[in-house]
Amino acid sequence: MPVVAVIGDGQLARMMQTEAIELGQSIRLLAGAPDSSAAQVAADVVLGDYTDLDDLRTAVAGASVMTFDHEHVPTEHLHQLISEGVNVQPGPDALVNAQDKLVMREKLRSIGAPVPPFAAIGSVADARAFSDSVDGAVCLKARRGGYDGHGVWFPEPAELESLVQELLDAGTPLMAEKKVALVRELSAMVARRPSGQVQPWPVVESVQTDGICTEAVAPAPDLSPELGQQARDLAVTIAQELGVTGVLAVELFEYRDENGEPAIAVNELAMRPHNTGHWTQNGCVTSQFEQHLRAVLDWPLGSVEQTAPVTVMANVLGGQTDPEKPMAERMLDVHARFPQAKIHMYGKTYRAGRKIGHVNMSGEDLGRVRREANLAADYLVNARWADGYTA
Amino acid sequence: MPVVAVIGDGQLARMMQTEAIELGQSIRLLAGAPDSSAAQVAADVVLGDYTDLDDLRTAVAGASVMTFDHEHVPTEHLHQLISEGVNVQPGPDALVNAQDKLVMREKLRSIGAPVPPFAAIGSVADARAFSDSVDGAVCLKARRGGYDGHGVWFPEPAELESLVQELLDAGTPLMAEKKVALVRELSAMVARRPSGQVQPWPVVESVQTDGICTEAVAPAPDLSPELGQQARDLAVTIAQELGVTGVLAVELFEYRDENGEPAIAVNELAMRPHNTGHWTQNGCVTSQFEQHLRAVLDWPLGSVEQTAPVTVMANVLGGQTDPEKPMAERMLDVHARFPQAKIHMYGKTYRAGRKIGHVNMSGEDLGRVRREANLAADYLVNARWADGYTA
Ligand SMILES: Nc1ncnc2c1ncn2[C@@H]1O[C@H](COP(=O)(O)OP(=O)(O)OP(=O)(O)O)[C@@H](O)[C@H]1O
Ligand SMILES: Nc1ncnc2c1ncn2[C@@H]1O[C@H](COP(=O)(O)OP(=O)(O)OP(=O)(O)O)[C@@H](O)[C@H]1O
Repeated sequence: MPVVAVIGDGQLARMMQTEAIELGQSIRLLAGAPDSSAAQVAADVVLGDYTDLDDLRTAVAGASVMTFDHEHVPTEHLHQLISEGVNVQPGPDALVNAQDKLVMREKLRSIGAPVPPFAAIGSVADARAFSDSVDGAVCLKARRGGYDGHGVWFPEPAELESLVQELLDAGTPLMAEKKVALVRELSAMVARRPSGQVQPWPVVESVQTDGICTEAVAPAPDLSPELGQQARDLAVTIAQELGVTGVLAVELFEYRDENGEPAIAVNELAMRPHNTGHWTQNGCVTSQFEQHLRAVLDWPLGSVEQTAPVTVMANVLGGQTDPEKPMAERMLDVHARFPQAKIHMYGKTYRAGRKIGHVNMSGEDLGRVRREANLAADYLVNARWADGYTA
Repeated sequence: MPVVAVIGDGQLARMMQTEAIELGQSIRLLAGAPDSSAAQVAADVVLGDYTDLDDLRTAVAGASVMTFDHEHVPTEHLHQLISEGVNVQPGPDALVNAQDKLVMREKLRSIGAPVPPFAAIGSVADARAFSDSVDGAVCLKARRGGYDGHGVWFPEPAELESLVQELLDAGTPLMAEKKVALVRELSAMVARRPSGQVQPWPVVESVQTDGICTEAVAPAPDLSPELGQQARDLAVTIAQELGVTGVLAVELFEYRDENGEPAIAVNELAMRPHNTGHWTQNGCVTSQFEQHLRAVLDWPLGSVEQTAPVTVMANVLGGQTDPEKPMAERMLDVHARFPQAKIHMYGKTYRAGRKIGHVNMSGEDLGRVRREANLAADYLVNARWADGYTA
């Protein structure tokens, strides 16, 4: 059986391990710490630093393929490893588009994929010019290293120049993008094999709260078939044109165009399983974690048929204070109220704003499934029922 | 999070690990070897011998509960551990009924559960008397240690006495049971918590070939609602009366009674996840492995709603010779032909008659799902399509 070396030790690697076990494999991890989310549950762990070339070499020795649970491995290391014969999936030329928001937008524009107007920002003058071109509707973004809304700013016109100056002084490479009048956010996910097979999932609605994904609804409610098809086609095209392998998440804005018609534009790419794909664990014949392993190994992809009409994923995000009731007891309370709730916990300690788990719930009635999935996730955070329910 | 100590290192423990990971736990294994099916994929492994009291103590130190992936731990050790304060689920007084076929039948008879006529066999004279009472339709069974049909004999009347003599001389404790005119075999599975909650799954048909389960069809085709209810009620009653905790599999004979009406009798009990419950991994909201963990922890049980009208599990049993094509390539071929096939492999080497994996397939059309699940499993064994298909 092939060994898959996974660089990273978070919940995404953890959930790959789940699927690897069932496929008769076991992943090899490059982990930063033995008690990290994934290392806790893996048998084959190399401790090391993903920015260190030698540690990467150690992790991949004897493995069939190297893949990732994040996009932060320096591409020069990946080029070096490839020159040494390592099978890296996705490769650095694809991955760079998930590392650098400006590179990605330039690439997408070059292939004709819809993106909001954007510009590189190297000076306050650049920012002023861009702001003028978009009537002051500016969204500033750090080109690299942002996550969960960190590295994204919506400055008032009056504060734009000082903010840009401050960020540039701090050495943050910047870009600016037009602030879009969002209707909502969507996510189009797809898996692609090195030999070309590509398989998109149903498009989901992704609910963001303060820049963090809190909920994903599959399939996206009331999405017109045309826009859904357009989103899936777009994800397929991006995967092909950028040479992405494994799972690709295309985070999309849905907005109204000049004619008031619904339209989409790309916000962000992730080249790995993604938060908006967790619903596939319980709502789809093939989960994104299994599909990622199959795709990077160049195995035929699995069916993405839904196993329920609606599946909702609600994130468990640590709150301000960890309630006294132990997490295991909270899970027990959720299980008692909702026997159909699928709770996934990451083995992470509770911390404000930290993703420590998620709940998947499936059913027929969208309103009910959404309400219950969110009640369950909220209970795991706060140890009380938001709707006043008492057992 | 609670730690669950699992005694055993086979595929059942391996698949518990899968579910433990998603629940935010990780199991502690007592494994016989570091490369055993479960130890390959677990982070927390104690190497030792499940018949050694000290090894059992080491494995359970600090754990919330001790449970099993087989029923061979000596009950005297379990009594001792309980006296030391260990939480053992299922407990030895339940477990003994899964260890000793005679004890089980006596217990079942005492609670009024249907079992074929049986007797203890301590001598050739006992065997002769029993044979006379059932018109020579004798099934001889080793009371302990049998599996996959080993330890079960159907002697011709002429050879009965010599066989019994030979087995008794070899020190095999024996019982005899009436050979039933089977219509088919069924399996009624249930999970029960120490505090009492009990949850039966839909009854499945279990196909046995040479004493080994080769296929399970869920739900059992054409089972009358009355007989189905009777089977579920029986499993619930047995779990309650015997004090079983965790998952209980009740293997049943379906036969025609004197009036030609379909009836059931118990063949065998297993107090752990069971081969006939593997379908729940892909066909049910809560798999037997998750349910077992929840049950032994005394957590509320999960929904057993089916996620598809029909799910078929086909075992991958090693054949006489391992084909040259590597198993990973066979999986790839199966995935290419059947994107909806869920392949579960155990990390075990190929050996004739050995269970090395299984395939789950779900759908609406019973005939098609059965055919395809069996084709897939057969391909994994033989590396050729039994129906002559070429890619
Ligand atoms: N051009 C834009 N117009 C309007 N809103 C935007 C724009 N860009 C980003 N946002 C909002 O800010 C949120 C965070 O932005 P973005 O997704 O780029 O950040 P991130 O740190 O890369 O987040 P993630 O890790 O979730 O992808 C988005 O979910 C969206 O709600
Ligand atoms: N009394 C009986 N009458 C007819 N057939 C029987 C009887 N007992 C057992 N068999 C047949 O023999 C097979 C193996 O018997 P049994 O299940 O008792 O063995 P085992 O070794 O305990 O198997 P397993 O490990 O699969 O439970 C059964 O599946 C059934 O087909």
